[in-house]
Amino acid sequence: MLHLIIADSELELVPKKLRNHPIIINYAKKRNKRPEEVLLDSTYHHSVLKSLKDGERRGRPDIVHLCLMNALESILNKEGKLRVYVHTRNNEVIYIKPETRLPRNYNRFVGLMESLFKNKVVPKDLALLRIEEKTLSKLIQEIVPDAVFIMHEEGKFMMPKEFGKKLTKYTSPVVIVGGFPHGDFLSDIKGEKVSIYREPLMAWTVVNEVIVSYETSLLC
Amino acid sequence: MLHLIIADSELELVPKKLRNHPIIINYAKKRNKRPEEVLLDSTYHHSVLKSLKDGERRGRPDIVHLCLMNALESILNKEGKLRVYVHTRNNEVIYIKPETRLPRNYNRFVGLMESLFKNKVVPKDLALLRIEEKTLSKLIQEIVPDAVFIMHEEGKFMMPKEFGKKLTKYTSPVVIVGGFPHGDFLSDIKGEKVSIYREPLMAWTVVNEVIVSYETSLLC
Repeated sequence: MLHLIIADSELELVPKKLRNHPIIINYAKKRNKRPEEVLLDSTYHHSVLKSLKDGERRGRPDIVHLCLMNALESILNKEGKLRVYVHTRNNEVIYIKPETRLPRNYNRFVGLMESLFKNKVVPKDLALLRIEEKTLSKLIQEIVPDAVFIMHEEGKFMMPKEFGKKLTKYTSPVVIVGGFPHGDFLSDIKGEKVSIYREPLMAWTVVNEVIVSYETSLLC
Repeated sequence: MLHLIIADSELELVPKKLRNHPIIINYAKKRNKRPEEVLLDSTYHHSVLKSLKDGERRGRPDIVHLCLMNALESILNKEGKLRVYVHTRNNEVIYIKPETRLPRNYNRFVGLMESLFKNKVVPKDLALLRIEEKTLSKLIQEIVPDAVFIMHEEGKFMMPKEFGKKLTKYTSPVVIVGGFPHGDFLSDIKGEKVSIYREPLMAWTVVNEVIVSYETSLLC
């Protein structure tokens, strides 16, 4: 079983500091929500993001959406060999049941995440998604993996195929992919740093490469 | 060079028949556009889609967006070994320059497609995207491939790894993936039908499997 963590993801509600800003108030109003109920989204809040620490990388639910679409619809997940978790910059962890069929439409996904931040569990009956306050290292402890790999530009170079093969040597490996557009991890993590390409890759590309390469080694 | 065609994609402007419907007029107004300028989108136009032929599968720009995000950001594309085309249900073909960085945000992607349908080329100076009236078979003729594979539930079963290996035996193979949620191709295509899994897969999952498997055989 591969445990994939999208870590330090730029997924959060609009921070307190910005909730009185006219751009946020307008945005929330248009969506019939209160400013404290909406996700921070760089596409719409670009001009106010500058005033935040790390503002140039924050507000990226789109990255989480793309990673989850690829992970949950993968052959590996359909074979019951994948668990995927979203860890956020504010040290929350989203647990996702493998059978979850997330909205394909981005705006609906955003609505679902907003409902998750509000209710902590969605939907109430099936509890397909659940969010808890938790650090990345606490999550890793909980998984009890026999290896931890961190996908990192400065890691040891390995071809994806080679990395996929290596992963199959473990029973419960954790692979950590950064859920942010650029820069480094915020969390302090212990593990083996791995790079699969000589240039930076998008988070969802790394997710695809890791999943398909592992799958190929495992199922062939 | 792998030529990937997302075929019979459910990407179109709102058809004439629906442009006077209150739901469409309202939707266009909210987006400051005219009804004939907006994409058909099942998320917002669900109730009016029923009156259209094939209404249960139409209006899916999200599928095209996910396929393109994965293809254009893949290692294969960065290595200059991929060309990706979008063919639509109305027999149009979208040509995309490999260096194109499409909007990650879905709503911006929709805006870009609407501008493409209107102006035929975007952006005017760089011409990264270009749309032309063209059938799928005409596009294939133009590519002059040495093999054509159609990803199909009823095709000959091959493990993704095996299929990736097979593709490397050709110089310019074409791989066709359906850009629709379910059902069959509308276009009549000649080629070898291939299935990589015992259950139906999402279009973007097939794109990921094909690209990473080909890449692995080609670059390792």
